[in-house]
Amino acid sequence: MGTSRFEAFSDGVLAIIITIMVLEMKVPHGEHLESLGPLLPVFLSYVLSFVYVGIYWNNHHHLLHACSRVTGAMLWANLNLLFWLSLLPFATGWMGENHFASVPSALYGVILLMAAIAYRILQRTIVASGGAASVLRDAMGRDWKGRLSPVLYVVGIAATSWSASLAQLIYASVAMLWLVPDRRIEHVLAQREN
Amino acid sequence: MGTSRFEAFSDGVLAIIITIMVLEMKVPHGEHLESLGPLLPVFLSYVLSFVYVGIYWNNHHHLLHACSRVTGAMLWANLNLLFWLSLLPFATGWMGENHFASVPSALYGVILLMAAIAYRILQRTIVASGGAASVLRDAMGRDWKGRLSPVLYVVGIAATSWSASLAQLIYASVAMLWLVPDRRIEHVLAQREN
Amino acid sequence: MGTSRFEAFSDGVLAIIITIMVLEMKVPHGEHLESLGPLLPVFLSYVLSFVYVGIYWNNHHHLLHACSRVTGAMLWANLNLLFWLSLLPFATGWMGENHFASVPSALYGVILLMAAIAYRILQRTIVASGGAASVLRDAMGRDWKGRLSPVLYVVGIAATSWSASLAQLIYASVAMLWLVPDRRIEHVLAQREN
Amino acid sequence: MGTSRFEAFSDGVLAIIITIMVLEMKVPHGEHLESLGPLLPVFLSYVLSFVYVGIYWNNHHHLLHACSRVTGAMLWANLNLLFWLSLLPFATGWMGENHFASVPSALYGVILLMAAIAYRILQRTIVASGGAASVLRDAMGRDWKGRLSPVLYVVGIAATSWSASLAQLIYASVAMLWLVPDRRIEHVLAQREN
Repeated sequence: MGTSRFEAFSDGVLAIIITIMVLEMKVPHGEHLESLGPLLPVFLSYVLSFVYVGIYWNNHHHLLHACSRVTGAMLWANLNLLFWLSLLPFATGWMGENHFASVPSALYGVILLMAAIAYRILQRTIVASGGAASVLRDAMGRDWKGRLSPVLYVVGIAATSWSASLAQLIYASVAMLWLVPDRRIEHVLAQREN
Repeated sequence: MGTSRFEAFSDGVLAIIITIMVLEMKVPHGEHLESLGPLLPVFLSYVLSFVYVGIYWNNHHHLLHACSRVTGAMLWANLNLLFWLSLLPFATGWMGENHFASVPSALYGVILLMAAIAYRILQRTIVASGGAASVLRDAMGRDWKGRLSPVLYVVGIAATSWSASLAQLIYASVAMLWLVPDRRIEHVLAQREN
Repeated sequence: MGTSRFEAFSDGVLAIIITIMVLEMKVPHGEHLESLGPLLPVFLSYVLSFVYVGIYWNNHHHLLHACSRVTGAMLWANLNLLFWLSLLPFATGWMGENHFASVPSALYGVILLMAAIAYRILQRTIVASGGAASVLRDAMGRDWKGRLSPVLYVVGIAATSWSASLAQLIYASVAMLWLVPDRRIEHVLAQREN
Repeated sequence: MGTSRFEAFSDGVLAIIITIMVLEMKVPHGEHLESLGPLLPVFLSYVLSFVYVGIYWNNHHHLLHACSRVTGAMLWANLNLLFWLSLLPFATGWMGENHFASVPSALYGVILLMAAIAYRILQRTIVASGGAASVLRDAMGRDWKGRLSPVLYVVGIAATSWSASLAQLIYASVAMLWLVPDRRIEHVLAQREN
């Protein structure tokens, strides 16, 4: 079974997640600039989540590029990732509406952590299926970003009980780390061709 | 007519169904952990429905893989399946908001039953069209899961008048049965190649 | 320019239209069967609209099948069709919530009429572009369904001032007419091959 | 990396944006024609935004047609464009509900301006990547519409403090300018073939 329909379904779900998050920004009733004020935290949490979904889409894109066939285990590992990402609009809305309060910020971190774990499970499932074998395994060997991110999310979640702002700073820093798409796979593929 | 656009439309509808269900989890007003409490049944019913839509997507994927051309009858048999699945977000939300009460749980079972019947009609339409003929027919001969599921849904619907929890247990068990994607078609295809 | 991305965008919009209509069926507050009663007209209008979007998707599918390249005029004729269809969820919700009252039923008919006109404009634009030329033109020559439908919609709209039920009957009858996908193009293509 | 999945994700997001805007038109409670009256400004702003998203989809289509491979920088330049367009439903709803008042009209102009800037950044990123090099660069040399539009948006935003109607007229005029899809790239491609 090829990867095309697998990609199409994932793209559809990610496109919908990234777009329905904006529905959490309810149109305000007043017509003056001040009416937008209370929406600022909702907007900022929307920006952070938009960047995160963008990062997942980019990395997902690269991951499947190194993969030639789809197994049943991969389908479910992928649905697991999409499940956690589908909770992002809810966590984003809750965090935004409560101006980055502690508990909503912690929940947001938990969703990010679960999505990161789901992504690693998907990577391992692809490697285990043998479809992309050595290319992806070589790339994963040096995967310091993939190992560091869950640790930072846990630190962020713990930080919410002390300072929610610090937690936000940590979440945003992890996003910055990943903004450059994952070139490891591209590098290994390029080396092979030489 | 090829199957690609047929798949793309089905993928789009299934991706939207799986994602808009999360909109039934309304962002709560409080900022404390207790505010999430009332959402737990909504969340659990979301998880169950997410798994069901995932199962339908997987099996749909395998079904069309055994099929080379699309007829008018198949288009409508497919729309019939998508229609019943499109009611799943409504039934999920009603069941979740009423903490798995009897009548909403029964309606949820009815939707699952109608979707299962619609899936069987789609299978038969594909076999009748001759496009996928013998491969799919051989696989369907041993289709104990496809025959057992509607029976279990009826038992579940009947059980709601006695114990809604038992009904939920039955619905979840049927989902477990199907979590492994349908390998029958793969097996028959593999045997042919030998 | 090929038709693939043109189809993909149309499929996406149609898949979203067909799915968000179900959001008009708000989850009721009570947990008993009677709570579903007031939703019955909303459900019936959802069924009618689901069938209509399904018909448009099927016919759109056949139409583009007879077409090999996409021009700027076709892109806009297609967006015009999608615009009118995008108003269907609104008209469906308004008609359903008011139990098929006269004015909402008339508005529903107007949307159907505008979509039918937009579809004919798209057909003509494709024929005029020369891309599908004679095959489609031959098929359109006998297009009694395409000519009769707008007339019936106008009769239905006029009927709403006298009996909204009659109007619904007319709208549903037109849908029945179209339930069989448009075989004219298939026939002409099949004759050519002989 | 090819452009197909890049296009599919962009199409998905644009299809969702164009469709969820219609959700801002809430179904009114009354069943008479007068109930639709207050929705007229919301409807008019929906039409304007629908046309704008249609224009972006068309031009995006042409832009990627002149491009053979996708880089990491292009992925993020594209997500930047989709981000600003994803704010269009919010700005459309706010402007429509406040009957084209000054501040919402100015915000609408700011979103259009940011999307126009994001589109130019995407164009430059594609040219800089060398993938589409000279074809697109030649076409961009005569890009008077791409240069004039941001200037007109700024004029429109400034005009809102004086007359919001004038601003609407300017926004609508820019849309008219673009309604003809971008033939520059087609022309340059056609000249090359000769």
